[in-house]
Amino acid sequence: MLKVYDFTGSGNGYKVWLLLSQLGVPFERIERDILKGETRTQEFLKKNPNGRIPTLELADGTFLFESGAIVWYLAEGTEFAPKDRLARAQTLQWMFFEQYSHEPYIAVARFWKHFLDRLTPQQEANLPDIMKKGYAALDVMEKHLATRQFFVDDRYGLADIALYAYTHVADEGGFDLSDYPNLTAWLARVKAQPGHVAIDHKF
Amino acid sequence: MLKVYDFTGSGNGYKVWLLLSQLGVPFERIERDILKGETRTQEFLKKNPNGRIPTLELADGTFLFESGAIVWYLAEGTEFAPKDRLARAQTLQWMFFEQYSHEPYIAVARFWKHFLDRLTPQQEANLPDIMKKGYAALDVMEKHLATRQFFVDDRYGLADIALYAYTHVADEGGFDLSDYPNLTAWLARVKAQPGHVAIDHKF
Repeated sequence: MLKVYDFTGSGNGYKVWLLLSQLGVPFERIERDILKGETRTQEFLKKNPNGRIPTLELADGTFLFESGAIVWYLAEGTEFAPKDRLARAQTLQWMFFEQYSHEPYIAVARFWKHFLDRLTPQQEANLPDIMKKGYAALDVMEKHLATRQFFVDDRYGLADIALYAYTHVADEGGFDLSDYPNLTAWLARVKAQPGHVAIDHKF
Repeated sequence: MLKVYDFTGSGNGYKVWLLLSQLGVPFERIERDILKGETRTQEFLKKNPNGRIPTLELADGTFLFESGAIVWYLAEGTEFAPKDRLARAQTLQWMFFEQYSHEPYIAVARFWKHFLDRLTPQQEANLPDIMKKGYAALDVMEKHLATRQFFVDDRYGLADIALYAYTHVADEGGFDLSDYPNLTAWLARVKAQPGHVAIDHKF
């Protein structure tokens, strides 16, 4: 059986088991508490040398890391994977956008405010810039969704899963989505997909 | 003909035209000076709503952004693309690693030190953390290369192109690679590939 090393509340981990749930693929979820350094142990670094969740263990013991790579692997050949060359590239475009221009701001603000007891002075100093860049990412999404139901080919797929994970909990990072009607409507469409499970699902 | 919107010296842009050069595909390179805000104009935001280079324009006027998505599109069906499902996922694993755990530190330190006249106090305050995380990424690469010639399937491909772009100029960000023998040997192997062009190639 597939094993998913995860940390409760992680949007990156959520992408993996949201997809697995919608695929109907059974998996074992194994908690590793990043706040206690459980992904930086010698044992865990043998699974993922970068010391992060999510990490996927295949049935043969092969490990894969990076949420984007994991969901790409799992979705190949299914309805969630893009069908043609351009759609594959556009899907990756939004997945890389998420990891480079969205997650480092929206997920980081959420992590600081939702998971930490208090911020360091350096974090406090960086927070305005983090919020500004997070809103810039939301602006890009809002504009793209003005004429579309989903991110690529107007059908639900990997790009939506990747972007939904942290956008739908952006409020926990202090982001106000009330001026983002297209984004809010898209969040509702994603949530209404068959087999959807919530990020606070109890395993 | 393909058009590549680029900024001289960008490692992300370099990935695209290094691959195009090695594929022997003709392209037009169009400079957009990010230091002068030329990727944030209304005209450019119609090409890439995220306002960044590289941006690829296909012959039919379709735009693609994010270096990882662009090289994936260009490499499909060629010797530079991974051949099977696991290799595709492992290639994306290293490409996402590059954009999340490597580029934001190694490329950012280089940008600050190599392209800016002086750092802001906030940049100065963040620099030690940036350098530490950059070295952590180099450590992961060094370990992976201890038993391999290239990042995936022991053949040169997209993962190598993605990671080479900023690693080979890491010294311009103040990173010292003298304690990274595996990395240094891999850099030489990448540079020796047929059709290799340097990042300071004059167009």
